Amino acid sequence: MQETTWIERYIVPLVDAPGADGLRDDVAIISTPGVMIATTDTLVEGVHFLGSDPLDTVGQKLVRVNVSDIYAKGAKPIEALLSIAWPHGRLETEFAAFMQGMQRDLEAFNIALIGGDLVGTDGPLTLSLTLTGACFGEQPVRRSGGRAGQSVLINGEIGWGGLGLAAAVTETDSDDTRRYRVPHISTESDAKVVADRAASSMDVSDGLLMDAARLAEAANCGIELDLSQVPLAQPSENIEKILDQCVAGDDYCILIAADDPHLVPGFTEIGRLTETRGLRLFQQGEAVNLPSTLGFEHKA
Amino acid sequence: MQETTWIERYIVPLVDAPGADGLRDDVAIISTPGVMIATTDTLVEGVHFLGSDPLDTVGQKLVRVNVSDIYAKGAKPIEALLSIAWPHGRLETEFAAFMQGMQRDLEAFNIALIGGDLVGTDGPLTLSLTLTGACFGEQPVRRSGGRAGQSVLINGEIGWGGLGLAAAVTETDSDDTRRYRVPHISTESDAKVVADRAASSMDVSDGLLMDAARLAEAANCGIELDLSQVPLAQPSENIEKILDQCVAGDDYCILIAADDPHLVPGFTEIGRLTETRGLRLFQQGEAVNLPSTLGFEHKA
Repeated sequence: MQETTWIERYIVPLVDAPGADGLRDDVAIISTPGVMIATTDTLVEGVHFLGSDPLDTVGQKLVRVNVSDIYAKGAKPIEALLSIAWPHGRLETEFAAFMQGMQRDLEAFNIALIGGDLVGTDGPLTLSLTLTGACFGEQPVRRSGGRAGQSVLINGEIGWGGLGLAAAVTETDSDDTRRYRVPHISTESDAKVVADRAASSMDVSDGLLMDAARLAEAANCGIELDLSQVPLAQPSENIEKILDQCVAGDDYCILIAADDPHLVPGFTEIGRLTETRGLRLFQQGEAVNLPSTLGFEHKA
Repeated sequence: MQETTWIERYIVPLVDAPGADGLRDDVAIISTPGVMIATTDTLVEGVHFLGSDPLDTVGQKLVRVNVSDIYAKGAKPIEALLSIAWPHGRLETEFAAFMQGMQRDLEAFNIALIGGDLVGTDGPLTLSLTLTGACFGEQPVRRSGGRAGQSVLINGEIGWGGLGLAAAVTETDSDDTRRYRVPHISTESDAKVVADRAASSMDVSDGLLMDAARLAEAANCGIELDLSQVPLAQPSENIEKILDQCVAGDDYCILIAADDPHLVPGFTEIGRLTETRGLRLFQQGEAVNLPSTLGFEHKA
């Protein structure tokens, strides 16, 4: 790898924000339109994506997992700093493919790449993106803003991440595999709805049950979910099949609490925050035991 | 590694900026006092630090290499997002030591840790810090602001990085080793001088000669350096010994171009920008041939 050549060849062409100064500098000027937020998500080969995943899809995934965090806070993505630890000896064509995937989604989500770092590593490909966002409202919608009695709503289908992973490990080129590699995420209009209507909000990436418990905990509440209301990738009446989907991660929906569920377009009511702490599950009025694992921890 | 436990135990105690919301959220609010800049530097074990380096010193180095970029632009560091890819099975005590070193220097440089990501890896420890800075002036001082005829100045001694690396690989616990592990960097008052007086500026981390060539190139100029004026870690009249120090990296001084060298306290004049492109070296008036390597590329 020749850092300077690769930066010139593959990264500089993606960069046109004035604050980036064509990546000729050590720092970038950050745009600050209103209240600004930032998030960092890191993907490690073999942990967050498979060695067999085409690298253009990894570039898209890196953008999307970060955009999902920004949208979930009622904000729109603005600028990104990209850090790449690239395995020694790995081919330039793969680097080009990775940056092509990045470019596709940077454009799709209207994000300006303004800086970063490219280094070599003897280990697995390790990618980190820091993404800034501008809030539609006066503040980001926090995880902690919920109150007992509020409705809990979600804007997508749960279980696609788990289905996709199962397909991707067999390396089958199916719709599910593609959806694992390049997750579907929320839209900017979802983010505006969050800013307008949500008391609290988070992106669901580690499994619905685990993240629902976190949303409640952050607000010092408990939470009840009606599993028969949860939109599923594979709708089922079988409680095992429902729970399997609700503990799989990588779904990147937005989970919110709101006062009036009828005023939240594009979201489905799936439960409510409660005074009593803890997570409780129901299916058509019947209590359901919690599974042993609520999701998985792969991110901070 | 248990991400949530380690974050609670070692990282949350370092976090008190209101925008971080105690790391209970997916994003942080960025402070935006004036014109804001950002930089990202990544350190990989075995590439940018040695496996034998104590991890508290690695935490300090991670902060310092980023602060050095911010100071060199005439700005002061404000907030940081930290990404850690931690090797599976590596001990919690080492994680604690790393965070202790981080804390020491976050405090020393008055930086608020506001977010980040902690993930596991099968590869080497890989650390990435994104650091924001607030400009003392109306803009960051760019690499590209120089003009032919301006003086070139530097604010520290060149060669400590190379000396230190040589000592550190033998694992000797000497002053040089300590200085490799925890580099001396510039100060906030140097950064103010840069903001007030420098037409162009960059931090010297890849070798003085390589970085001097970059400073000139960014301004579409050439550059002449008088090696007898360069402050060296090991002063010498021997041209080989001088050049060895001038191509070693990891020095983290600030290199600037300025109109009037007498108005730049703390900096030493070592050359000037020229109309003629390229890098030319002199020693006491005599031309000196360029060495085959001007420095090393380890960062973007």
